[in-house]
Amino acid sequence: MNGEKSHIHPSVGPVRAGGILACVTDASGRVTRYFEDYIPGLTVDCGTFSLSEAEIVAFAKEYDPQPFHVDPAVAAAGPAGGLIASGWHTTSMMMRLLVEHFISGETALGAAGIDEIRWPRPVRPGDTLHVRASVLEARRSRSKPDRGIVQSFIEITNQDGETAMTMKATNFCLTRDPQT
Amino acid sequence: MNGEKSHIHPSVGPVRAGGILACVTDASGRVTRYFEDYIPGLTVDCGTFSLSEAEIVAFAKEYDPQPFHVDPAVAAAGPAGGLIASGWHTTSMMMRLLVEHFISGETALGAAGIDEIRWPRPVRPGDTLHVRASVLEARRSRSKPDRGIVQSFIEITNQDGETAMTMKATNFCLTRDPQT
Repeated sequence: MNGEKSHIHPSVGPVRAGGILACVTDASGRVTRYFEDYIPGLTVDCGTFSLSEAEIVAFAKEYDPQPFHVDPAVAAAGPAGGLIASGWHTTSMMMRLLVEHFISGETALGAAGIDEIRWPRPVRPGDTLHVRASVLEARRSRSKPDRGIVQSFIEITNQDGETAMTMKATNFCLTRDPQT
Repeated sequence: MNGEKSHIHPSVGPVRAGGILACVTDASGRVTRYFEDYIPGLTVDCGTFSLSEAEIVAFAKEYDPQPFHVDPAVAAAGPAGGLIASGWHTTSMMMRLLVEHFISGETALGAAGIDEIRWPRPVRPGDTLHVRASVLEARRSRSKPDRGIVQSFIEITNQDGETAMTMKATNFCLTRDPQT
């Protein structure tokens, strides 16, 4: 995360997964993770973000111009009871935090797919959204031993502890040691 | 779609679904669809978009700064063989065409979820990406008869006819007639 994005506040420090101290990220959040580091049960705290009304409207005008994403007055009178962020805005902000705290640019080989995106609570201007990533499964490729496939569960909670979004991601990732 | 976005070219005209003339969109692509209009088998041609190298890099710097999305030289030397778009950029562009051609602002009540996003082929600068939406299932809400739930399959193909992305979307939508 570059310094200008003052609305993004990475969390730093050890994270417990299943009661075991699982991972420590440094102050910059830059840890190079290889396939071997994605151990099922590992949970990584990816920090928080928030979106202003102006940011929500700007993104939605470009990519998702539904009334409840672009027009605060219409949104206030409708079932949403106020402006809410495009779900694709939330996934995009989440992705930035995943790239900075969970996925390593040196080892990532892209995503095979995304499953089960759910948005049980809307994201509203000024909400503090907390992103956590947990490793569900990890298996080495049989045909290409230099890489593995990691399935993760991503959860975003708001300042009230409510779940705003969940999804599962399946990513390819380089192994540290292709021989083991 | 506003006039300035010259890289987006909505297709207009009748679309055949299962051999039956299923839907005609007008020149502006603005058709108000209610729940009753989302008949399983309906396929809607949502037009095309393309992304320049500069657009791919700008989106990825903001939301998905992995090397193969932001650095053409690194991307060219890596397994992608050149710069490729963030999958979230592709979903966001897709969403704009869905809002303009498939989902109606007057009736849409948001998405319950997204399933099975797959990106079998990368999106590269200058590709022409064609978006189609097909209705898989539609059922009226039992508890709230003013709305229904529509499940759709979205497919994006490139200029070579290769599938670049697929996903399933589940959306809430107002009924035209809550009584029937």
